[in-house]
Amino acid sequence: MVRIDGSGAEGARIVERPDTLAVEEPLEIRADGRPLAVTMRTPGYDVDLALGFLLTEGLVAPDGVQEAINCADNVVDVTLTEPVPGDATARGFYVSSSCGICGKGSIDEVRTAQRWTIADDIFPIATDVLVSLPDKLRAAQKTFDRTGGLHAAGLFTADGEPLCVREDVGRHNAVDKVVGWALTNGRLPLRGTILQVSGRASFELVQKALMAGIPAMAAVSAPSSLAAEMATGAGMTLVGFLRGTSFNVYADAGRLTLS
Amino acid sequence: MVRIDGSGAEGARIVERPDTLAVEEPLEIRADGRPLAVTMRTPGYDVDLALGFLLTEGLVAPDGVQEAINCADNVVDVTLTEPVPGDATARGFYVSSSCGICGKGSIDEVRTAQRWTIADDIFPIATDVLVSLPDKLRAAQKTFDRTGGLHAAGLFTADGEPLCVREDVGRHNAVDKVVGWALTNGRLPLRGTILQVSGRASFELVQKALMAGIPAMAAVSAPSSLAAEMATGAGMTLVGFLRGTSFNVYADAGRLTLS
Repeated sequence: MVRIDGSGAEGARIVERPDTLAVEEPLEIRADGRPLAVTMRTPGYDVDLALGFLLTEGLVAPDGVQEAINCADNVVDVTLTEPVPGDATARGFYVSSSCGICGKGSIDEVRTAQRWTIADDIFPIATDVLVSLPDKLRAAQKTFDRTGGLHAAGLFTADGEPLCVREDVGRHNAVDKVVGWALTNGRLPLRGTILQVSGRASFELVQKALMAGIPAMAAVSAPSSLAAEMATGAGMTLVGFLRGTSFNVYADAGRLTLS
Repeated sequence: MVRIDGSGAEGARIVERPDTLAVEEPLEIRADGRPLAVTMRTPGYDVDLALGFLLTEGLVAPDGVQEAINCADNVVDVTLTEPVPGDATARGFYVSSSCGICGKGSIDEVRTAQRWTIADDIFPIATDVLVSLPDKLRAAQKTFDRTGGLHAAGLFTADGEPLCVREDVGRHNAVDKVVGWALTNGRLPLRGTILQVSGRASFELVQKALMAGIPAMAAVSAPSSLAAEMATGAGMTLVGFLRGTSFNVYADAGRLTLS
């Protein structure tokens, strides 16, 4: 890679630099041996990614996984206690590095069915805990500072203690990796937790958080209109533009407390 | 929406503010009346988005569109001169606001077949033109400054003249809208142009640019490893971290000239 810096008084400076790019490779997710999805992801925690994807897309129940193995490079096979719905495998289910709602059969299906309600999971979230989360997320990110190309998702307790932080070229993959960790460790539903994401809060991220029973989500950037609408409807606390000591509240359900 | 500002000496300030969120709604793309894809997008230029999607995913040839109409709210129907491949409609093809390679049948299919070569489309790109593009893109963005939640893609001539700028909650949708504009206006392949994108340069954006015959792409953020690899293989100029007067060159093919 060549870096060109045009700010010098004597003209442009050209510097040869080693590449430190975020790795993006396809992962094939199989259910009972049949290809179900291909997602463009950053390698690592592939089994968690596959499990989180299947759960947040509503394809398996939390107790529906018998075994999940990395059966080849860039392939994870998940053995299920019950087969996935026939139309999902017939249709195929292919996702990119930034895609979360692929494979849905129509607009009406875009809203995946929730397994848990979060509206009754009310606990205080102190604003000083909330404003500390982006820095904690960055501190836990190992790759970002080198490549500048990775999204992160971090799961925190209401006291701001990190439970699990994952990175990926795709925002939704980072969340799926966190949810897969929770599934593997028997921690679903994720009552009493806050999910901090590095970028924007899209509809699909809110949906994925809801599918894992996460009652609060905070984003460094903007939410979309549909994300705010869905969070309000579900009783999720949704915070955006969380930077420095300020943030916007798009949905609350009574959890935020000034501190 | 409520804004909370915790920086004051007398404690947190709470201000009620009107919402100005980026709108995200599902668009159903139909081919000859059959549902083919659902994409989460920012409404506007929906016909261009549908056409750009079909072209950059390799589902129609540039001369394969008979008619495209907004047949209902959030639905575009494209009448084709030849039907799309049977497996694509059988399978379904569902994409999120940030997804570009959905619906592919296996890892091997992820690389879509190019229609045009760009390696022979060599023309000088002056560095002072290049560093002017992010500001020109921002100047042409009408929504971003209000919502902070939209990606943009802008097509420029080698002299830095804007040809088409589009915004969307999804990076790949913004590019598809630009390509759809080009298809509608008989400008494909887009020889001699530079595509400037507001965020990251992912594999799918490079692929979409290649499918439209765009020989040069510049991103404000990082490319992925696969994006750099694909650009190098295709003879595309790929620039990342284009900020201020500096940038990184990940692939060139001899177009960049210092100015």
